[in-house]
Amino acid sequence: MVTVEIVTTGTELLLGEILNTNGQYLAERLNAHGFNVFYQTTVGDNRERLTAVLRQAMARADLVITTGGLGPTQGDITKEVTADVLALPMNLNAEVMDRIERYFVFRGIGMTDNNKRQAMIPENAFVLENDNGTAPGIWLEHSGGVIVNLPGPPRELKMMFETKLLPRLIKHYGVQGVIHSRILRSVGIGESILEDKIADLIATQNNPTIALYARQGELIIRLTAKAGTIEAADVLIDKLEDEICQRVGRYIYGKDGDSLPLVVGQALAKNKQTISCAESCTGGLVTSMLTDIPGSSDYVLGSVVTYSNAAKQKLVKVAEESLSRHGAVSEAVAIEMAQGVKQLFQTTYGVGITGIAGPGGATSEKPVGLVYLAVAGPDGATRVYRHQFTGNRQDIKYRTAMTALEHLLDALRGNEQK
Amino acid sequence: MVTVEIVTTGTELLLGEILNTNGQYLAERLNAHGFNVFYQTTVGDNRERLTAVLRQAMARADLVITTGGLGPTQGDITKEVTADVLALPMNLNAEVMDRIERYFVFRGIGMTDNNKRQAMIPENAFVLENDNGTAPGIWLEHSGGVIVNLPGPPRELKMMFETKLLPRLIKHYGVQGVIHSRILRSVGIGESILEDKIADLIATQNNPTIALYARQGELIIRLTAKAGTIEAADVLIDKLEDEICQRVGRYIYGKDGDSLPLVVGQALAKNKQTISCAESCTGGLVTSMLTDIPGSSDYVLGSVVTYSNAAKQKLVKVAEESLSRHGAVSEAVAIEMAQGVKQLFQTTYGVGITGIAGPGGATSEKPVGLVYLAVAGPDGATRVYRHQFTGNRQDIKYRTAMTALEHLLDALRGNEQK
Repeated sequence: MVTVEIVTTGTELLLGEILNTNGQYLAERLNAHGFNVFYQTTVGDNRERLTAVLRQAMARADLVITTGGLGPTQGDITKEVTADVLALPMNLNAEVMDRIERYFVFRGIGMTDNNKRQAMIPENAFVLENDNGTAPGIWLEHSGGVIVNLPGPPRELKMMFETKLLPRLIKHYGVQGVIHSRILRSVGIGESILEDKIADLIATQNNPTIALYARQGELIIRLTAKAGTIEAADVLIDKLEDEICQRVGRYIYGKDGDSLPLVVGQALAKNKQTISCAESCTGGLVTSMLTDIPGSSDYVLGSVVTYSNAAKQKLVKVAEESLSRHGAVSEAVAIEMAQGVKQLFQTTYGVGITGIAGPGGATSEKPVGLVYLAVAGPDGATRVYRHQFTGNRQDIKYRTAMTALEHLLDALRGNEQK
Repeated sequence: MVTVEIVTTGTELLLGEILNTNGQYLAERLNAHGFNVFYQTTVGDNRERLTAVLRQAMARADLVITTGGLGPTQGDITKEVTADVLALPMNLNAEVMDRIERYFVFRGIGMTDNNKRQAMIPENAFVLENDNGTAPGIWLEHSGGVIVNLPGPPRELKMMFETKLLPRLIKHYGVQGVIHSRILRSVGIGESILEDKIADLIATQNNPTIALYARQGELIIRLTAKAGTIEAADVLIDKLEDEICQRVGRYIYGKDGDSLPLVVGQALAKNKQTISCAESCTGGLVTSMLTDIPGSSDYVLGSVVTYSNAAKQKLVKVAEESLSRHGAVSEAVAIEMAQGVKQLFQTTYGVGITGIAGPGGATSEKPVGLVYLAVAGPDGATRVYRHQFTGNRQDIKYRTAMTALEHLLDALRGNEQK
């Protein structure tokens, strides 16, 4: 097992000015090839702290990969510090110098003296050529393993990683086998209830492993297998997925890159059915999510945002009596909105959404986050659901939208009784 | 000087499955208040490695802030490991337990036994309450400084940081010198043109500094000053802002936390005017953005998403002749949509949006990204704009929506001729 530490350098990372996308990229690619990333450390362009971080990383990981600090300026110290830590002198490398000069000629711009710093290479280093810039990468072997310096600009880093470093890693360490993940996406079930239902599997399974996490209104189940090939990993994952689906399959709407609007859209398109929505508290968000999907004009005929009571009455024929008797946020009004919009656009399904997104609008009986969702279907029946969401206005809008899509998917799959 | 190490935990970070947005958020906010982030370390949910990372962090930084691993599941070990490192026992905290129980009762869903884990609190800890979830945060003082555990979900982390942790940090450490930024938000001007107009200021100013970046359909100008207090920094920034506004003020719609929907909404509310939209290619996104703003029900009366031609005719009275002669994506149809929806909802302004979001639907004369936007105003006049956007379907939807809001704001400010 090869263990890896990724060391990302740069003051702009420490200041929080940019997201650490290089760290994520390297972690994802290394794991996919069976290299075990155990630590990621971010440190500024400070000689003393970078030295300490590199010493520690080399002591606790087989492979250390740094990013950033290979540029021509005085602040770029990663290569120098790496050489210092290994007590290696730096020499001007004629081949690298030549490449840099040709790069400037090709771009038709002048080279400055400080670009020469980029051609200084630690003794015994293997140079990883940079096809997208002037900073060469460095590969150095030491008694405890390997340390690699990669440039910071993502375009340069990615190209160098894929074409120069990854082949060399596989040659040096041999094929590591793969770590392959599959994501099962669920909605409509709480995290602790879901965990409860598969707790024994989580406790006993170690290949694949199971991880749960909540993200953006849905609950993710990640199955991760180690195997010699992706195909072999898939066999392991298939088996565990079957077991999980027997227990909580009704809550799982899709896998990997699926999204709820996509899966709903696929079901509608497959059945040649259509949809329209009458949205109040979501303000058009459900329809916007549905129309994010290419080809959605085949099944989204239209929607109305009926924020005012007058609009609810005029456009989707909500009865004045329902509004005055039950209020705009009520089961009765949600049902009439769903039926009214289905009638207005002559669609197979109609969705009605009314609720209190807050922060204003609450009463003693109707708190912020109270939502009624109704789905009117082709069988003439309309189902209505009551939910109580929490969070700020945008959170409540988003959770309401996701839950409306969930109920719609249930209707499309004949799965309302889950 | 207070030095900080941020320790982000979670296997999904090490596997590169998600971007480390929490690390960036904390780094940015801490630096803004004069706390010096020297290290960011990411480690998995592994007891041994997390223990070593925490020990080291506590030794080399005054303040250690962890994120993640406070959930109810067995994989959530951050709080336990923190207590172990400090040799503190954990006890069930009745107050926290009560909060968690009330959270579940309010949501109307069942609590499981593993939620009790979240109410176990290390001895001597101060509890940071979680207003957006069940996991409490932890503040622990030790001989070398302070260690804080924050939850992983960004929504919970941000709320807890801003309302609970930051005030406590300032109380504990005193006010640090500040690095204070102001953001000027502009739309409707290209990045290179804007840079050209203020190039001399960018070159010569170092306190405040000026940074430009493009983000989500707008162009951000960030002015950053160092000073002893926020007030002193503001004085420096005010002066530079005046200079910038003299040159490009007409493109600047707001500052800092402003958003285009917010500024549009404020203008509508101030004038006691109302708005409705007829959206085609944006599919409800403009109305959803407008209704993200608290209080928007005062001025958003409603909208229609008229994806089909039939809906355009029926709901907003687009003439059949306009559709057959010019096509659905045309100046004429955008104008009729704006006027029709204004009439339908009896609003002060009506917005009409028609375009090709792609990837399908293009013709030789009408490429993907072609959009017509119309704004019908109270003076009886309707202005129409033609745009050609690039990007994928969601990019085009978003850019169209931002540009529609920009034109609406121009109309509200009587600024159409910019």
